[in-house]
Amino acid sequence: LKAENLENIADLLTSFYSGSVKTLAKIITFVENERPERTEILQQLYRRTGHAYVVGITGPPGSGKSTLTGKITLELRKRNLSVGILAVDPSSPFSGGSLMGDRLRMKEISWDEEVFVRSMATRGALGGLARTTADIVKVLDAFGKDIILIETVGVGQVEVDIIKTADCTLLVCVPGLGDHIQALKAGIMEIGDIFVVNKGDHEGADHLCSDISMMLDMSSSKDIRPPILKTIATLGEGVPELTEEILAYRQLLQKDIETSLRRINKAKEEIIDLLIREISTVVQQKIFFDSSFEESIIQIIAREKDPYSYVKLITESFEKYCQDKFSSISNINPTNLK
Amino acid sequence: LKAENLENIADLLTSFYSGSVKTLAKIITFVENERPERTEILQQLYRRTGHAYVVGITGPPGSGKSTLTGKITLELRKRNLSVGILAVDPSSPFSGGSLMGDRLRMKEISWDEEVFVRSMATRGALGGLARTTADIVKVLDAFGKDIILIETVGVGQVEVDIIKTADCTLLVCVPGLGDHIQALKAGIMEIGDIFVVNKGDHEGADHLCSDISMMLDMSSSKDIRPPILKTIATLGEGVPELTEEILAYRQLLQKDIETSLRRINKAKEEIIDLLIREISTVVQQKIFFDSSFEESIIQIIAREKDPYSYVKLITESFEKYCQDKFSSISNINPTNLK
Repeated sequence: LKAENLENIADLLTSFYSGSVKTLAKIITFVENERPERTEILQQLYRRTGHAYVVGITGPPGSGKSTLTGKITLELRKRNLSVGILAVDPSSPFSGGSLMGDRLRMKEISWDEEVFVRSMATRGALGGLARTTADIVKVLDAFGKDIILIETVGVGQVEVDIIKTADCTLLVCVPGLGDHIQALKAGIMEIGDIFVVNKGDHEGADHLCSDISMMLDMSSSKDIRPPILKTIATLGEGVPELTEEILAYRQLLQKDIETSLRRINKAKEEIIDLLIREISTVVQQKIFFDSSFEESIIQIIAREKDPYSYVKLITESFEKYCQDKFSSISNINPTNLK
Repeated sequence: LKAENLENIADLLTSFYSGSVKTLAKIITFVENERPERTEILQQLYRRTGHAYVVGITGPPGSGKSTLTGKITLELRKRNLSVGILAVDPSSPFSGGSLMGDRLRMKEISWDEEVFVRSMATRGALGGLARTTADIVKVLDAFGKDIILIETVGVGQVEVDIIKTADCTLLVCVPGLGDHIQALKAGIMEIGDIFVVNKGDHEGADHLCSDISMMLDMSSSKDIRPPILKTIATLGEGVPELTEEILAYRQLLQKDIETSLRRINKAKEEIIDLLIREISTVVQQKIFFDSSFEESIIQIIAREKDPYSYVKLITESFEKYCQDKFSSISNINPTNLK
């Protein structure tokens, strides 16, 4: 980066720290578009992070996640907490992709200066989406948001990766979605710290609650048993209680003896992700135009070599490099860390 | 791998080369489940690959891709070509996930020994799915399949990555799907080598054809202008012509002066993908329990260090390692390769 750019970054950060929402939006765009300046900015911001409480809100389309997110935001505002909302969901009304009615309902929020709403494009960014989300959470955190709500749709791998960013995850269910319990069975239970049965006045809501409860009995590996709450998001019913539960969970986390270990592992995973991403870029750039690589490719296409052995060779050499670099590995007994 | 396992692999391959469909299925399962044996097997198989013609069939849900895949298969069988079908689509009738009617229609295929059908689970494997698909294509190729059809739904990043495996890609459109043209606009045109307007008797089919044609006029960067064909897959109408077009495209590819360069780049990308995957695994394993890494994490959590600078440091060291390893890089002028 040129000196000129670094100066601009300094200006940008001054404006950011003074609370300019416009600059906040600009920096998020830098991160989202992977502009080269982002790394310098994130490096600088990082020291101001660690304050925000990150809450993931996930569930199938039609479960009322967005409405719920809106109502929870209103409750948090009543408690004078500032809120950042990240909607990683193309159908979310926060993304402008949904019914007018929903969007009107969100108006109460959009008039509030202490609520920052950002929707993220999912097309194209897949793969890097979890990484980008984690970085944007840091930006919102450094900006001073007390609570960051991340809304994601569905329960695919990308969503699970995104939700790992959260300190607390709400799994929103609704009665009447046929194969939903099926989805829950497929290992998704584990990501829920709080279960919400929305549309609690619909037929089958109580049945769904007891189904979830039963499944938690069978499979939950958590120290804290996830509570199950009923809400009617459209009417705001049950939302104050849910908000209390969300905030109470934070208290629990802070007291929990396992939390610091969990935080370390989370930080590790995040940094390894970042590292893998950077190293991948280097591999791509360095090898693509290398002449010995070119030769090998020709031999591979001619079936004189096979790609798997070739990759194995390079990987083994890399492994040795890592061994030298992280020489202390063999001295560490993984079980000591537990 | 132990000597015992290697012996088993030799037996497995003997059975595979003799044409055992059961062994073929077993090896595919090894690849799909990332069993350690798979690398040795893929290394061995590789020399027998390079014969199959890989055709991707993609399009939105409800466009009739599966029915079309079935009918194309019947046409290929009439020409005495053996077929492998890979359905990377949870809603495909090949995956058993769809209407009974569709499944019955597929019966003609399932009775044919020269047609091997495999559906792939998309849940969980995301990210690695394109890699796994490419490996399974190699297995089917080595088994002696003349044509491999890959059916994928939609047009997300994962699908685009999968479709890169194909030599020829069919983009299936249908009249009446509102935002479909929108999706086409968003850069997806480029992956289509042949455009199929299915449900060609429905209202708006001709209109859709001319829309596609217009868009190709504006945006196509290909040397060979993709043809647009109308079909009615349920009745088999237009499918013989489409099959001819698919086979003709292969002839074109073989004659095309750019093809060998394209093949080299495709092989490069595939090997770099494989390499990145392997290197990522090494990074993950080596670093996670390293004590200096542990120390840095603690400093990062305490906000004494920031993760971005830390990652940058390691990446720069890695870059230097690559520089030594691929020393010829600086001597290569990328433009010479064109």
